[in-house]
Amino acid sequence: MPLADTRFATRRRKLASMLAAQRVDVMLVTNLVNVRYLAGFSGSNAALKISKDLSAEISTDGRYTTQVAAEVPDIEATITRHCAEALLSGVPEGRRVGFEADYVSVAMLDRLTKACPEGVTLVPVRGVIEQIRLIKDGVELRGLTEAAQLAAQALTGLVESGELAAGRTERDIAADLEYRMRLLGAERPSFDTIVASGPNSAMPHYSAGERTLADGDLVTIDFGMHRHGFNSDMTRTFVVGHATDFAREIYDIVLRAQLAGINAATPGTALVDVDKAAREIIEDAGYGDYFTHSTGHGIGLEVHEAPAAAPTGKGVLEENMLLTIEPGIYVPGKGGVRIEDTLIITSGAPQVITEWDKALTIV
Amino acid sequence: MPLADTRFATRRRKLASMLAAQRVDVMLVTNLVNVRYLAGFSGSNAALKISKDLSAEISTDGRYTTQVAAEVPDIEATITRHCAEALLSGVPEGRRVGFEADYVSVAMLDRLTKACPEGVTLVPVRGVIEQIRLIKDGVELRGLTEAAQLAAQALTGLVESGELAAGRTERDIAADLEYRMRLLGAERPSFDTIVASGPNSAMPHYSAGERTLADGDLVTIDFGMHRHGFNSDMTRTFVVGHATDFAREIYDIVLRAQLAGINAATPGTALVDVDKAAREIIEDAGYGDYFTHSTGHGIGLEVHEAPAAAPTGKGVLEENMLLTIEPGIYVPGKGGVRIEDTLIITSGAPQVITEWDKALTIV
Repeated sequence: MPLADTRFATRRRKLASMLAAQRVDVMLVTNLVNVRYLAGFSGSNAALKISKDLSAEISTDGRYTTQVAAEVPDIEATITRHCAEALLSGVPEGRRVGFEADYVSVAMLDRLTKACPEGVTLVPVRGVIEQIRLIKDGVELRGLTEAAQLAAQALTGLVESGELAAGRTERDIAADLEYRMRLLGAERPSFDTIVASGPNSAMPHYSAGERTLADGDLVTIDFGMHRHGFNSDMTRTFVVGHATDFAREIYDIVLRAQLAGINAATPGTALVDVDKAAREIIEDAGYGDYFTHSTGHGIGLEVHEAPAAAPTGKGVLEENMLLTIEPGIYVPGKGGVRIEDTLIITSGAPQVITEWDKALTIV
Repeated sequence: MPLADTRFATRRRKLASMLAAQRVDVMLVTNLVNVRYLAGFSGSNAALKISKDLSAEISTDGRYTTQVAAEVPDIEATITRHCAEALLSGVPEGRRVGFEADYVSVAMLDRLTKACPEGVTLVPVRGVIEQIRLIKDGVELRGLTEAAQLAAQALTGLVESGELAAGRTERDIAADLEYRMRLLGAERPSFDTIVASGPNSAMPHYSAGERTLADGDLVTIDFGMHRHGFNSDMTRTFVVGHATDFAREIYDIVLRAQLAGINAATPGTALVDVDKAAREIIEDAGYGDYFTHSTGHGIGLEVHEAPAAAPTGKGVLEENMLLTIEPGIYVPGKGGVRIEDTLIITSGAPQVITEWDKALTIV
């Protein structure tokens, strides 16, 4: 029998210690990302029950009998098609059971209510596991760093191959970059790869289309790899052939804003102030109206998770949080620039895990 | 202004005609797949309101102002961060508003309840839009056929390149196939590509790992492409180098079962009988215990949708439904075979849209 990975027990212990404050005795976890975080199970159907006394039980269906035994050797597994209901039916009378109100649908709550033993109360709980996930442990820091470094390596391969050039389509470049990430160990891209060229670079949420890169274009490439459950996220903007004065001007402003955001990302700093540090530089340069999104977000098992470096961001940074810093300027019809890194917040200067040149690169 | 695509209005008309039976005046649609189905909007944040009188309103956030105007020219759009709440706040007193109980979380229902005007009642509704989606219209049939044909073309390219061969890893083959699909127009794979070789082929839900293909292996490749919102799904099993007697035996049984399933897939046939037609052949050959999943599923905007060709399947097939037929035999430690096609149910014999050779292919 494989040794259980102690990080999962540590995470469950944290959760168990927070249950009393939520006024529940047992937490029923049904969000699969949270099940994976707390037990290490990566299948597509499961539920997990964790009690204040640290006892735990997992359920999944017959497709995953072998997998659950291999991935979760330290927790008793129930094999059933109705995972959450099965775990609930074993709860003793008088207990209060928390469920994840952000993920349990109204129809599912109806099924849970029917499966609930007499004298057991269902209690909506929000954000508790997400709060634990904010601070990354050693395994997460290593996994996230590895994904970020491999993705950066794929970008290096793309640029060195000469495939990022005038005459190629956005779609072909995205396909090439994704293929390189796959060969380096990605299970899939973390999100639809963005290759936004020329006027398309002015659309922050564009993906990759049929447009052919041409001389003078700005090209924004925003991409990430999903590997072993972890995600990466980085953006670089290139210039094709030659850089116009406009391209040089906004590139310089965005780079200064991005460096200011990184410098501000230290423990104890309010998330609104991290956003402000980057945003002020763009506003002072007269492009404030063209920076239409927030400065950054957390990343881990999900591409976008807490915290948020935004004008409405809540709380302060703490050591071992992850945060992207990704200011941009988007001028409709003319083009745009975004530069994004992912950082680990440390006691000193943040550690940039998406290391890659940020000088204006002409391809 | 672009002409509105009439298929969306047709679908909304169907929904509107079904609201009275659900005892609601207005339907608030928040599942993004259903928003896309009913209005054509493909952004990542939206809600849609449809009334019995056919009036409609859509909401999305500021990132999608341009996109919603282009994709949904025939419906008034509200730009807001709280899409569903904004649409709800405009409902007149006395109306009953249906919400999608399978997708609205308990926390979201709480927010909707707070945003609900006095005298307006929220009513849980289930499966109504999914029922309309069961029968595909002309645009869907063309889009699904195109995705299936392009994916099959990618498999042809893989096999003809000689890259599917002993000495290559499962992961490299998956990367190669996904790259080919991307170049042919896929936005992403419909699901994590399965390349399961040797003993891994006995695990129906394996993906693709580091194993190197070797002489005598069975290799199951299950893959699909997502293109313009549509998905494809097909499986072929190959033999590397030479076919063992075991491989030939189970391949023959699975192929006969698959053809029987296809033959049974005609309008008016109960879904349980489609499953039975394929399953009986495997059972009669003595491998019933090794066919551990259902025979097939619907496919469209989602990879898995209704109907289900399973021992517990409900209802009968109708013309213009889509269905996969994918029986398999999985013998732990020895290997497995699965053969899968996607069919359009027609008034006559079903139309196989994943056309590709099914004779045992040695690579």
